[in-house]
Amino acid sequence: MLGKIALEEAFALPRFHEKTKWWAGMFATDTEKHTAEINDVGPIRLDFAERHGVGLQILSYTAPGVQDIWDAKDAQALAVEINDYIAEKVKAHPDRFAAFATLSMHDPQEAADELRRCVTQHGFLGALVNDTQRAGVDGDDMIFYDNEKWDMFWATCTELDVPLYLHPRNPTGTIYEKLWADRKWLIGPPLSFAHGVSLHVLGMVTNGVFDRNPKLQVILGHLGEHIPFDMWRINHWFEDRKKMLGLGETCKRTIREYFADNLWITTSGHFSTPTLHFCMAEVGADRILFSIDYPFETFGDACDWFDSAEMSNTDRLKIGRENAKKLFKLGDYKDSTA
Amino acid sequence: MLGKIALEEAFALPRFHEKTKWWAGMFATDTEKHTAEINDVGPIRLDFAERHGVGLQILSYTAPGVQDIWDAKDAQALAVEINDYIAEKVKAHPDRFAAFATLSMHDPQEAADELRRCVTQHGFLGALVNDTQRAGVDGDDMIFYDNEKWDMFWATCTELDVPLYLHPRNPTGTIYEKLWADRKWLIGPPLSFAHGVSLHVLGMVTNGVFDRNPKLQVILGHLGEHIPFDMWRINHWFEDRKKMLGLGETCKRTIREYFADNLWITTSGHFSTPTLHFCMAEVGADRILFSIDYPFETFGDACDWFDSAEMSNTDRLKIGRENAKKLFKLGDYKDSTA
Amino acid sequence: MLGKIALEEAFALPRFHEKTKWWAGMFATDTEKHTAEINDVGPIRLDFAERHGVGLQILSYTAPGVQDIWDAKDAQALAVEINDYIAEKVKAHPDRFAAFATLSMHDPQEAADELRRCVTQHGFLGALVNDTQRAGVDGDDMIFYDNEKWDMFWATCTELDVPLYLHPRNPTGTIYEKLWADRKWLIGPPLSFAHGVSLHVLGMVTNGVFDRNPKLQVILGHLGEHIPFDMWRINHWFEDRKKMLGLGETCKRTIREYFADNLWITTSGHFSTPTLHFCMAEVGADRILFSIDYPFETFGDACDWFDSAEMSNTDRLKIGRENAKKLFKLGDYKDSTA
Amino acid sequence: MLGKIALEEAFALPRFHEKTKWWAGMFATDTEKHTAEINDVGPIRLDFAERHGVGLQILSYTAPGVQDIWDAKDAQALAVEINDYIAEKVKAHPDRFAAFATLSMHDPQEAADELRRCVTQHGFLGALVNDTQRAGVDGDDMIFYDNEKWDMFWATCTELDVPLYLHPRNPTGTIYEKLWADRKWLIGPPLSFAHGVSLHVLGMVTNGVFDRNPKLQVILGHLGEHIPFDMWRINHWFEDRKKMLGLGETCKRTIREYFADNLWITTSGHFSTPTLHFCMAEVGADRILFSIDYPFETFGDACDWFDSAEMSNTDRLKIGRENAKKLFKLGDYKDSTA
Repeated sequence: MLGKIALEEAFALPRFHEKTKWWAGMFATDTEKHTAEINDVGPIRLDFAERHGVGLQILSYTAPGVQDIWDAKDAQALAVEINDYIAEKVKAHPDRFAAFATLSMHDPQEAADELRRCVTQHGFLGALVNDTQRAGVDGDDMIFYDNEKWDMFWATCTELDVPLYLHPRNPTGTIYEKLWADRKWLIGPPLSFAHGVSLHVLGMVTNGVFDRNPKLQVILGHLGEHIPFDMWRINHWFEDRKKMLGLGETCKRTIREYFADNLWITTSGHFSTPTLHFCMAEVGADRILFSIDYPFETFGDACDWFDSAEMSNTDRLKIGRENAKKLFKLGDYKDSTA
Repeated sequence: MLGKIALEEAFALPRFHEKTKWWAGMFATDTEKHTAEINDVGPIRLDFAERHGVGLQILSYTAPGVQDIWDAKDAQALAVEINDYIAEKVKAHPDRFAAFATLSMHDPQEAADELRRCVTQHGFLGALVNDTQRAGVDGDDMIFYDNEKWDMFWATCTELDVPLYLHPRNPTGTIYEKLWADRKWLIGPPLSFAHGVSLHVLGMVTNGVFDRNPKLQVILGHLGEHIPFDMWRINHWFEDRKKMLGLGETCKRTIREYFADNLWITTSGHFSTPTLHFCMAEVGADRILFSIDYPFETFGDACDWFDSAEMSNTDRLKIGRENAKKLFKLGDYKDSTA
Repeated sequence: MLGKIALEEAFALPRFHEKTKWWAGMFATDTEKHTAEINDVGPIRLDFAERHGVGLQILSYTAPGVQDIWDAKDAQALAVEINDYIAEKVKAHPDRFAAFATLSMHDPQEAADELRRCVTQHGFLGALVNDTQRAGVDGDDMIFYDNEKWDMFWATCTELDVPLYLHPRNPTGTIYEKLWADRKWLIGPPLSFAHGVSLHVLGMVTNGVFDRNPKLQVILGHLGEHIPFDMWRINHWFEDRKKMLGLGETCKRTIREYFADNLWITTSGHFSTPTLHFCMAEVGADRILFSIDYPFETFGDACDWFDSAEMSNTDRLKIGRENAKKLFKLGDYKDSTA
Repeated sequence: MLGKIALEEAFALPRFHEKTKWWAGMFATDTEKHTAEINDVGPIRLDFAERHGVGLQILSYTAPGVQDIWDAKDAQALAVEINDYIAEKVKAHPDRFAAFATLSMHDPQEAADELRRCVTQHGFLGALVNDTQRAGVDGDDMIFYDNEKWDMFWATCTELDVPLYLHPRNPTGTIYEKLWADRKWLIGPPLSFAHGVSLHVLGMVTNGVFDRNPKLQVILGHLGEHIPFDMWRINHWFEDRKKMLGLGETCKRTIREYFADNLWITTSGHFSTPTLHFCMAEVGADRILFSIDYPFETFGDACDWFDSAEMSNTDRLKIGRENAKKLFKLGDYKDSTA
């Protein structure tokens, strides 16, 4: 279909060219090509979009990004630099590009302020954060946002009425890194990404973040980071634990209600029709959003799959574009590829 | 259906009565009832089985069991005690009960020897191990079995031609425990179990355990601990990483081939028809086995669901009994409930 | 869920008591009970609705009804009698009952006029017609509505902005009856109903009714009378036949487009979760409507199934009520069972 | 995959070249190409098979074939000619071609005798019959095989231990033809084929053919001619009708049991993964067989779809080849394309 909206699309800062290339060596078949693609916020992406019917790309800074910087000052400085950089780039193609704010997550107030600046001054559509914030003198600590200390930040998201995309990053921390280093092939998309994000977002659910911020909208990539698969099992145990063990004190609704009211999943990096259909049954087509995960995945793989995947025309339009238009209030969005 | 075979069915040692009761307090609605059920290897279970059409129950020691004991000597002593205890119990009802060996996993040779003793002398049908073995002076270490050091143990499994059930246990280790303690409602069935086992078994896959032991059979509970959901995504990344990054050196087959040749999944604790149908598409009905997870789940919930779940009669028989008869060579198994 | 809306719910005229009882003998386990239930438009239905969370029942005259009367005058007279009768009954419980017009389909103008009278004067929500109209001196002929002669009738439906429910009836006509009499167990729900309606509605599609009346809305029961199962195959052949054989002259859109723009399916008499999920993938949850098919099916079977069928909360609400509120413009509908 | 077995693959007699070409005009994009393909039993098919990994093609005479000939003598003569013709062709490539017998179905004894001759003398693997046999002085009658008169024929099938493929043909008979002529685009694959075969085979089920011939094996194309879609609904009504109305006298088992014990479905002409997965849930992968429906469908469409359709390796092998090897006792079948 034409005019698809994609929202897990990464860019990097050109000044980190060497670092980006080194990083690409860990997963990319062609590091030169990957580096060129992720540094480009213009012709390469626009051409792919044109050829594959993507009308709007919501860009975000690549993982682990600022969440990997354990010095709070450095993290904040980089976040601001990234946001101002991408704001300029987006201005050049307002009909084809939009952006998610990059945030240092060392301090809730600071994160909230930068989000407000990006939304009100740059017109960003929300924020994308890479799982936990690395912290501590040696970067061994992980800051989670699933506790009351972060309520003021979440309150700002709902006040600004913008969603947050909870994106994965690689495992860090001496012990935790070792655990994964011994089975290194599972780091990233094959397993560690889903482990990190599913823990974090279900922590938000069970620790009451969504009950204290009922309008909060959080987006998960990769068709939900495994959670839809266990919807029945999670619901079964949560409801038992509420009855007798006090989970109900912080987590008042059912897991299915949080997915109906607060959570969204995207197709980024998971181009499987049976899995999509399963998610349509467990999560519902109204909460599923098309995405690519470019340049870690190709426009071709994502769009050729989605455009020909067997589903109703109604749901293809919703997942491909209409749901995103509602979530991001893009009522006046005109498909520039049509 | 009658004559179902169930294979994730837990028992405890009566002498740990107090500890079992305390443990039950963390999840059971009725600790007295749970303690009575898990300590019983007779009338209670046999009555449930009779009423719900379960012909054979393959019993295993409850988690975390011996994997929680970081003193190697104590662990081995307890394993032997448990095996001799259950062997006696099973002898009393050979047509209704069978057992999986409990193993201390501190030392591959010791584990292999105890497995051989249980299979050859007690007629056990295989072993059930609770994820990693806790170890180290303070119990902070975790022993994984996904490295070459354990090949001799896996070779013994294949030589004896018996499967190993890789069952979950709770997270341990100072750092790791803290991570979960802050989101305690996710410990166990809601999330941590699937994280532990999916990491361990995919570690075995990528570290070459199944390539070095091509006949090895490993069973996963809870419809595969999330892995079937990402079958497409895992395959997509594994095949890319093989092409360029050397994963192919240890992991020669595709993830779908390991599921076709070496892995089995059970319905324990996951009584969802859409999820079962999804697994039938991704894993295939020939590698799915009925199980309950009693007494953490009830015979009623598991059997009422399975007996009425919409599927072909052929697959109901396979999943309910026939696949298990093949895996455990129970050619002469007569359904004592029919 | 509470406040479900059901729209394939039959009533009969009490004066046909004996005939209704005789008819019931062909399929009902308890003819007395069935006759009492179908003749009641009050306490029995209201009590079932209360107990099973059905807020609004859209009532229609039982099949074959007026479509079985081959004398045009008699048919028209009975239609008017039925409409005036049910209009009175509905007035007594406007928050719990609504109605579909019963129409004699011997003449398009007459059918259009009676529909207009029912909608404008009685406030009916549309019409329910039982497949083809029996006609001819000996009742051997069948009038189909899938040709241009009927465009003025369909134009009236769109002008009044009300949908038509195309309900099945038994096979008639000497030859055709013989064909089914020799395999009598297939008459009705097991097979003949789906054959009749799928032929008629796909005739409308291929003969251009929906292209000439692009706003026309037609509802099919029983999850689509087999058509969703062959969505791929029908589309495959239609598109080929358009390319080369002229089907495109009358049928300009794809079968998936007609299902997205003009057709609806209900769950009446088909309480299967896998089939519903399959239809959610092929047709989309936005075009599926809950229904019972009472008193041929029970409120209990339909509602116990639907309320517990595994699906997202969002889709349960849509299929159970919200889609119907949109289709019938029931914006001010208040669930009287909540 | 390589070595697929396909079993709904049509050929025609070259001497009917002109008639075949005229017939092709009704559906083929390129009548010359179609006529060349259907008349070839050599290089064209063998080349397609080689390129698309089809190891064995079980050939059958194209529809409506002998079932369209209402003169019994002529029908029998043509059947014999066809069988002797294809027997010769198959002998030339015994590793790549096999055949189904063509039968005149005017008389059970004659049909049984010709089937016996073909199986015992020509080594055919069973028979393929095109729905009902046209009969009567003017060809207006239809002979069904779902009554006791045909038991001796079915007994011969089971005695010879070969299956019968019940293939569709176009509607005939003055009244019936008219019914379809007015909606001509539905004749054939879009609808009439499924109507004909579903009526006939469910007639066999309800009239007791499979109860009187419990070992009889019947194959249906196109993923089951709509029947799997209504498995729940058919079962629901059959079981009710058994309880109270006497269906149980002729039809002792459930519809699911007939599908588990007597019926098979093929993928011919229905290359939809969601529909295949739905059938895997309702019918089971053990009773599904790969087929193309060449030359009405292409090797490319069928094989490109099947080889890449998302499913377990185990089921791909079963559906693609192993199930057919069991059904046709092809234990020594060697994949000549591997």
